[in-house]
Amino acid sequence: MAYRVGVIGGGQLARMMVPPAVHLGIEISVLAETEGSSARLAATRVGDYHDVDVVLDFARGVDVVTFDHEHVPQPVLAALVEAGVEVHPGPAALAVAQDKIVMRERLTALGLPIPDWAAVHDAAGLEAFLADHGGRAVVKTARGGYDGKGVRVVSGAHDADDWFAALADGGSGGALLVEELVEFRRELSQLVARRPSGQIVPWPVVETVQRDGVCAEVFAPAPSSAGRVADVADDIARTVAERLGVTGVLAVELFETTDERLLINELAMRPHNTGHWTIDGSVTSQFEQHLRAVLDLPLGDTGCHRPHSVMVNVLGGPTTGTMADRLPALMLDQPAVKVHDYGKEPRPGRKVGHVTVIGDDLDESVFRARAAVEFFTE
Amino acid sequence: MAYRVGVIGGGQLARMMVPPAVHLGIEISVLAETEGSSARLAATRVGDYHDVDVVLDFARGVDVVTFDHEHVPQPVLAALVEAGVEVHPGPAALAVAQDKIVMRERLTALGLPIPDWAAVHDAAGLEAFLADHGGRAVVKTARGGYDGKGVRVVSGAHDADDWFAALADGGSGGALLVEELVEFRRELSQLVARRPSGQIVPWPVVETVQRDGVCAEVFAPAPSSAGRVADVADDIARTVAERLGVTGVLAVELFETTDERLLINELAMRPHNTGHWTIDGSVTSQFEQHLRAVLDLPLGDTGCHRPHSVMVNVLGGPTTGTMADRLPALMLDQPAVKVHDYGKEPRPGRKVGHVTVIGDDLDESVFRARAAVEFFTE
Repeated sequence: MAYRVGVIGGGQLARMMVPPAVHLGIEISVLAETEGSSARLAATRVGDYHDVDVVLDFARGVDVVTFDHEHVPQPVLAALVEAGVEVHPGPAALAVAQDKIVMRERLTALGLPIPDWAAVHDAAGLEAFLADHGGRAVVKTARGGYDGKGVRVVSGAHDADDWFAALADGGSGGALLVEELVEFRRELSQLVARRPSGQIVPWPVVETVQRDGVCAEVFAPAPSSAGRVADVADDIARTVAERLGVTGVLAVELFETTDERLLINELAMRPHNTGHWTIDGSVTSQFEQHLRAVLDLPLGDTGCHRPHSVMVNVLGGPTTGTMADRLPALMLDQPAVKVHDYGKEPRPGRKVGHVTVIGDDLDESVFRARAAVEFFTE
Repeated sequence: MAYRVGVIGGGQLARMMVPPAVHLGIEISVLAETEGSSARLAATRVGDYHDVDVVLDFARGVDVVTFDHEHVPQPVLAALVEAGVEVHPGPAALAVAQDKIVMRERLTALGLPIPDWAAVHDAAGLEAFLADHGGRAVVKTARGGYDGKGVRVVSGAHDADDWFAALADGGSGGALLVEELVEFRRELSQLVARRPSGQIVPWPVVETVQRDGVCAEVFAPAPSSAGRVADVADDIARTVAERLGVTGVLAVELFETTDERLLINELAMRPHNTGHWTIDGSVTSQFEQHLRAVLDLPLGDTGCHRPHSVMVNVLGGPTTGTMADRLPALMLDQPAVKVHDYGKEPRPGRKVGHVTVIGDDLDESVFRARAAVEFFTE
């Protein structure tokens, strides 16, 4: 019988699981939030992932449930496990991804390198942290943030009063996360995949350039990372995957500090924007590897086709029309660029696609990828 | 607006158009012959492609109609064109692919190199051809043959009497094709893609090994083909594409004779088994290129990731169970092999999947690909 994977969430990550599923003969189905989702081709059901009955019904037709995002509530996850459904990553691992304070508690307990942090309940708590950290810090909401949302640099005790007020209203945990403002040379990302039975396979560590808190560009492998940086990043990600029991793809976003330490910034337990280059640049893409991992199939080779892969996001999309309208001009100009259009309506700041260029020269690949994206964003 | 491509036929060629459609943001839909077809994920309709109304209705939702096979009847194609539907390849080109005698007439008129041939109506005609060609020849039915079906080596005037009788009964053209038995060193295949507006882009010529008339293995590029062989193959395919007005992918199967000539064996006007290696081995796969070509989008780069790509078909499939059952053992043994499972029931001789290995050493890649396929066929 064919393997059957059900994906909760119909975003571009679910969409990009479709091609490797087609090739490997895996039956993929998607529980999408809306009609016309990015993953609509494989969407067998449209429904609310907060609704236990909807999710249980969706899960009946598949061998394993996995995710496009980390937002499925714990009671829904518990109901799936209770019903005997294979869920990867599992509820315990996802709990760590779902709450940034829980994440810091666990990473601290594991002795992993992270920025100084505290859970603060009010302006007084924030003031105390600021006093110990040079008067500036980063405040993050514990839950629900993504792509720069729910993240704010503060320099005064009252700079997060609105968020404290919202906490008091909503009562979601009752604390904000505050972290030291790290002086970093660059940001890195280490992806690994882990099977339930234990096998872990990494890709090379990559450099990621963020703009306004959103991933804009990725260089794979990270320039000048061979040796210590690659080894430490790999060690950190393996430790996180094993000790948190992550299954599927794990992304560990890292700061490389000006004093040459690697500190964990965030974790994601799913295919990740910083791994999109693997579709065109690696023997096994993160989407194929995620499917293999959640099915507990042996993991694939993660060698690279060429010395450099460069991924640039299409953020917002064209000022008029759609990516499709710009495709002919781009393809004429850049026949070797790989285009990925998520089938989403353009909207300022929205991730609507990406391009990848692979090659022997980093500078040329970067130039080509940036030039390609300009066709989609002007 | 997104581009919308409709594919008539739900086989593995339609199935393998789905991944590049997903990446490029092309809406793909398939008119399949049956429920549970290989391309079922994209099958928006199940119906008979001989039925003009079914095909016209299917075509209403797309920008261009293309094909998984060459068997759509000319009256149906004419009705599509009449209704203003873009059809690629078009009826005139497909007419040449649909009838092997028409094909030889056209190739002869173009002065292209082909084996000696004749259209014969009876045993006397066959006997005359045999007398001129050393007493042995190949007889082919003009229509409906594929994968070795409708092809027979004969050494006597009455060896095709059953086929002549069937012709008289059915009246489909009234002739069989007879060709000289070519002494060839090896078989080659030259794929190109051509846009309606004229651009043509080739892949490297490949060597193909046939067993029982079915493609079994492909080595890309063909060993020792750089230079004259590659140039001549490229010239032949370009000429065919231009002069027959082929749009989309064209495969030209060639004999490399013992006296170093290249002769055209057959043509296919669609993605072709001898191009499956491009999914994993080329910057632009034949399936992506076919979509680009039929939409008249600029064609992609056809460079290769590694010096050698080796494709081996999974013919028949496992003696018990399915390819999926054998996947764990294969993946454990060969993490770099790319597996393609067409989601079809195993049946003796049936093409149910293929594997591709890319690498720097041809012998090692061949060894690995063959070893991988053994997991699926024992």
